[in-house]
Amino acid sequence: MTFAEIGRFFEEHDCYTILTHKSPDGDTLGAGFGLCAYLRDMGKKANVVNADGFPDRYYFMYDDYTEQDFEEQCIIAVDIADPSLIGSALPQYMVPGKVDLCIDHHISNKYYAKQSYVDGSSSAACLILFELFKELGRPISDLIAACLYTGIATDTGCFKYENTTPQAHLAAAELIQYNFGYAFINRRMFDIKSKGRMAAEKFVTDNMEFYCNDKCALIALTTETMQSCGIEPAEFEGIASIPLSVEGVEIGITIKQRHEDVFKLSVRTTEKLDASAFCKQFGGGGHIRAAGCEIKGSLEDVEKQVRAAVEALGLCSDD
Amino acid sequence: MTFAEIGRFFEEHDCYTILTHKSPDGDTLGAGFGLCAYLRDMGKKANVVNADGFPDRYYFMYDDYTEQDFEEQCIIAVDIADPSLIGSALPQYMVPGKVDLCIDHHISNKYYAKQSYVDGSSSAACLILFELFKELGRPISDLIAACLYTGIATDTGCFKYENTTPQAHLAAAELIQYNFGYAFINRRMFDIKSKGRMAAEKFVTDNMEFYCNDKCALIALTTETMQSCGIEPAEFEGIASIPLSVEGVEIGITIKQRHEDVFKLSVRTTEKLDASAFCKQFGGGGHIRAAGCEIKGSLEDVEKQVRAAVEALGLCSDD
Repeated sequence: MTFAEIGRFFEEHDCYTILTHKSPDGDTLGAGFGLCAYLRDMGKKANVVNADGFPDRYYFMYDDYTEQDFEEQCIIAVDIADPSLIGSALPQYMVPGKVDLCIDHHISNKYYAKQSYVDGSSSAACLILFELFKELGRPISDLIAACLYTGIATDTGCFKYENTTPQAHLAAAELIQYNFGYAFINRRMFDIKSKGRMAAEKFVTDNMEFYCNDKCALIALTTETMQSCGIEPAEFEGIASIPLSVEGVEIGITIKQRHEDVFKLSVRTTEKLDASAFCKQFGGGGHIRAAGCEIKGSLEDVEKQVRAAVEALGLCSDD
Repeated sequence: MTFAEIGRFFEEHDCYTILTHKSPDGDTLGAGFGLCAYLRDMGKKANVVNADGFPDRYYFMYDDYTEQDFEEQCIIAVDIADPSLIGSALPQYMVPGKVDLCIDHHISNKYYAKQSYVDGSSSAACLILFELFKELGRPISDLIAACLYTGIATDTGCFKYENTTPQAHLAAAELIQYNFGYAFINRRMFDIKSKGRMAAEKFVTDNMEFYCNDKCALIALTTETMQSCGIEPAEFEGIASIPLSVEGVEIGITIKQRHEDVFKLSVRTTEKLDASAFCKQFGGGGHIRAAGCEIKGSLEDVEKQVRAAVEALGLCSDD
């Protein structure tokens, strides 16, 4: 689809449900609420839906949002590569061919929608929307700018990671001229930590183990340790970047217990290693620097397999 | 001075000493080594000078740098608002009228040089140089791009803080297209921590005290505590942002002992408070969200004065 075709699609339809992915992040919510505000500004009806609800963290996107009452006619998915990411709380949308239009930036997109606009080279779904709205020509509101900026900033680690394109910076140059507090948003997204979060980070830092001449840092979080340390499990969300933040570490691994004998691995690597390839051997996948997989077995088994896989990377020998 | 006049200045002079400020950061070094490479590419002779030497952290700027042998004819200061910031190890350059040209982005610039280009609205000295080089038209090398990018990124907290201008993003959009690893640089600048640094951060987190309904977080580091905790004092550099990173905190204060009865305050505030005004009452100053001052007295005295000043902000009453 071209941007002009998406523009015609918006003109021709009404009463939109906009799907965002489960465990929502800044990009899917920014794209969802940005597109919702854009469609409402066009005089259309639109709601945003998420299987897990809308977290407080992004409240500025939906502080003034109220759900509209209408009969759904059209379904758009934003930032959702695969229908399974819609979330099992919304089975009615996971049916093949149910989604009318998907706008996404994941190269792994499954093309499950009737029509798709996928740009795997784009830093964020919100960046695609920014460029779409710019081409369509209708002015965007401060709220839309705030939503799109948040998605671009969060998906690029505030323009830090290698997925930051010149286009991402060009979009930011325009968006920060709108009247919303981008510095306030960035502080909220990247700097502020609750005391519980600080405790969780300290717990990770204290309990990380180092292997392979300190080139691998690993933290294993069992249900029991997470319960016994007195920190809310939610505070351990997104701590996967901590092991890689130690100087000299080339691969950072977080092992989190999901069920009795099921462990979720989150792998982060420097430019020297391919996290996606690492996880693929355990049936997982993801991006080149950030990937994940699930391994079944006891923690002891899992750690043994993971350490063997790390050793096979050839990091451990002295340089 | 206009950019065209600076261009003529570069044409007309040779044998440059480029001064960077003491306790060097990414912006002064990026501007210094970026300008040095630019002048050398023009066929001029140029060296960069710093009172404290060049830290490992920014090694990629000077990995291939060798000092040139020449008789100094012209002195340029970059990112130096006040001659005292040149540093007492270089008294020969602190003499009034000694510096020929100053390029700076501090609104507090003292106009101590014979000629000055000061743009207080610019995010970084490196951003001024980027715009200067662009106007002058001579192509810049990958090394120059890496230096300028680093200065812009470090002075804006990787495009996070409110001093990030559209121009900073536009410059980044161009600079990241050069052949240098901006993601590698960002990881080095913003993510990687030594184990010593992690220990220092943990020490700060463990020992912070909260006042005024947790709206003020304060850490006091005496020479004795810094020595007894077994962490290198250098690891405590730049930890002033930690107190403000706690959710709900509006003013974060770091008190560090300088001498027996001299304490250095570093103050960081949210958009609700003026750090510069806070420090002014103790004879200091700085930026609106990041400022500093020195207070003489015992730690007890100093803490008492600081807490009184915090209480005077009117934060402490219940909302």
